[in-house]
Amino acid sequence: MAVEKGQWVLMATARSPTNIAVIKYWGKRDEALILPINESISITLDPDHLSATTTVAVSPSFDRDRMWLNGKEISLDGGRFQSCLREIRRRAGDVEDERKGIQISKGDWERLHVHIASYNNFPTAAGLASSAAGFACLAFSLAKLMNVKEDCGELSAIARQGSGSACRSLFGGFVKWTMGNVADGSDSIAVQLASETHWDDLVVIIAVVSSRQKETSSTSGMRESVETSSLLHHRAKEIVPKRILQMEEAIGGCDFATFAKLTCADSNQFHAVCLDTCPPIFYMNDTSHRIINLVERWNRFEGTPQVAYTFDAGPNAVLIAQNRKTASLLLQRLLFYFPPPPGSELTSYLLGDKSILHESGLQSMKDIEALQPPLETKDKTSVQRYAGDVSYFICTKIGRGPTLLTDEGQALLSSETGLPK
Amino acid sequence: MAVEKGQWVLMATARSPTNIAVIKYWGKRDEALILPINESISITLDPDHLSATTTVAVSPSFDRDRMWLNGKEISLDGGRFQSCLREIRRRAGDVEDERKGIQISKGDWERLHVHIASYNNFPTAAGLASSAAGFACLAFSLAKLMNVKEDCGELSAIARQGSGSACRSLFGGFVKWTMGNVADGSDSIAVQLASETHWDDLVVIIAVVSSRQKETSSTSGMRESVETSSLLHHRAKEIVPKRILQMEEAIGGCDFATFAKLTCADSNQFHAVCLDTCPPIFYMNDTSHRIINLVERWNRFEGTPQVAYTFDAGPNAVLIAQNRKTASLLLQRLLFYFPPPPGSELTSYLLGDKSILHESGLQSMKDIEALQPPLETKDKTSVQRYAGDVSYFICTKIGRGPTLLTDEGQALLSSETGLPK
Repeated sequence: MAVEKGQWVLMATARSPTNIAVIKYWGKRDEALILPINESISITLDPDHLSATTTVAVSPSFDRDRMWLNGKEISLDGGRFQSCLREIRRRAGDVEDERKGIQISKGDWERLHVHIASYNNFPTAAGLASSAAGFACLAFSLAKLMNVKEDCGELSAIARQGSGSACRSLFGGFVKWTMGNVADGSDSIAVQLASETHWDDLVVIIAVVSSRQKETSSTSGMRESVETSSLLHHRAKEIVPKRILQMEEAIGGCDFATFAKLTCADSNQFHAVCLDTCPPIFYMNDTSHRIINLVERWNRFEGTPQVAYTFDAGPNAVLIAQNRKTASLLLQRLLFYFPPPPGSELTSYLLGDKSILHESGLQSMKDIEALQPPLETKDKTSVQRYAGDVSYFICTKIGRGPTLLTDEGQALLSSETGLPK
Repeated sequence: MAVEKGQWVLMATARSPTNIAVIKYWGKRDEALILPINESISITLDPDHLSATTTVAVSPSFDRDRMWLNGKEISLDGGRFQSCLREIRRRAGDVEDERKGIQISKGDWERLHVHIASYNNFPTAAGLASSAAGFACLAFSLAKLMNVKEDCGELSAIARQGSGSACRSLFGGFVKWTMGNVADGSDSIAVQLASETHWDDLVVIIAVVSSRQKETSSTSGMRESVETSSLLHHRAKEIVPKRILQMEEAIGGCDFATFAKLTCADSNQFHAVCLDTCPPIFYMNDTSHRIINLVERWNRFEGTPQVAYTFDAGPNAVLIAQNRKTASLLLQRLLFYFPPPPGSELTSYLLGDKSILHESGLQSMKDIEALQPPLETKDKTSVQRYAGDVSYFICTKIGRGPTLLTDEGQALLSSETGLPK
């Protein structure tokens, strides 16, 4: 068998985006398979600003499966990694690399070990769905390495078993995670509702909120909600199905007013269900509340929604502006209320697409100090500013799904040793 | 007619307690009559620590109805004051004061004007149900002055038209506000479930939380919830009726574990509904959340509930301890996490029943500084304390309903002029 010959290393590297739900997933009907109690819809965020890059390697010289996350070796013992690895290996095909003289046949994969290195281009601990990007990238890159024929929809059912919301990161644009019917969960997959080019004037600004609070993990949080919240089941059964239909229609028609209304309402209802859990779960803090109030006040003042907000299992705000113009007006408001702490650099306070600073007329700390209270502020004399309550902002947009990176320079593992570079 | 003769002033003074709901009222089915969409249950708080005192006076010399709240004249034009005055006048009886030689017959009351002075023995703006105590006291004192024959249940339907939750302040102990069926609301009244002596080892500690946020009034907040929250109606129809029965049983049997579980769950669900409102309403802040976490952590550590918490339309925590022993352990925890700001006096930081300080072994600022993290604290090395986040605490208990104060020294109006003393 060819795999026994020599100490070659075969690799694949991919990059996968994060996503943020606009109709929220909260609650599993099957803990092991990670099957949801309701459908959800997300937008995929531009991988240039928020993504996981994963290199997977195989070699007859590897004596066990190993993984490094952001340069640090982590255990693969968890059931979730094992599920993903097992499911991908089951679907592996024949692989031939003529240049390197490697031949791996279907049956070999069970005996070959893999090395995995993954890296997030944003802080892992910031609560920005790093596990969604990570498991999507793991499934996608392993599938490429092992010549798995399944399409992204089928791969999404594998990524789902790593982290539920990861299934939505297998596609760009607007994505729905369907409930599915069959017992093995194979039809609880992600489908693309519209690609990233369908509605491309939306701008996303993320406020990474400073938090000293240790948060409840979403896994244990949603388990406790399922067990104790009497509102959760009503939401899943009676409310979400209608919202899913309305959201699909809003996305189809690029109807921002409806999109924003549903997004905000569904974020708030998800956090309401967390609060209805026993013991209650608080993901939003005073800063999150202030950001919501800022947006609600502005939207009311303008008469139509300018910006939508949504919060996942943490205090960070994900704000979606209708277009560049409203995004720059939003940034003015955000930087008025949440200026960078004294002595900090503006360019490290606004990450991602920095050109929005120019469009907002904010190019120095002086410009921010000179900002006036927004027009909609009621009592302009007693306005409070909260320097330091936001760690930084990221300006980004809706982006594409996973991509294979063919440039070996981007690989995280050495093609000679299969160990982190 | 006797009332024309002379410039006499006839007065009555009463004191009424506040109350705090343990099964919450949130949402009206009739805005004008203030009829609720669900039943609620409250505990009445000791009027020695939290109450309104109201003097009502009548004199042929008064040329219009007037009212002073905490020494400042306020308008009686609002529909709510007018409803209460009208309803009480309709029920007025004959009054004779032989000593003063005054005779007022039933029909005279329509033409006689009243002066009203009311005073809260706690900060009005602190969000401690001052309007509940105030309207209960208004109805009660006017009924006494005008010789209204109706009992407290019937008076509660009048107080209800001033402020919904005021109806529950007509009784001491444990009180239920019934929904009622008839269109005019006359059967939506308060009934006493148990008197204040039924379960008298409970201790109440209120944390008055510092807040810079302007809060949504409960009147407009509940209107918006009724209009926009899809969870509210499910709560009112499906959840509250069951909780009312369970709570009545828990109170009847002095079953603290069930009482605490229901009280906390219902407070959290009320705030969940506020969050599900569009735009969302936040009454609790980070300090409120920290107090909840403190209690939940302790209750879990002990295995059985030690303390229940409940929050109304504001950030203040009302904590109910099973007995004096748990109350003093609670106070140690509260003062550990929320010590008085440097330079302040302990005796102005713990109001009400100060004897609890002695029982807690906390008699000086030094004792508070020396407090150790509670046993249930996980990481004792990185514990944070939040001096200044609580304005003060009040230690009190469950108390009696409205009482007539016969000592004229306690009257707020002069018996000669009918004006504030």
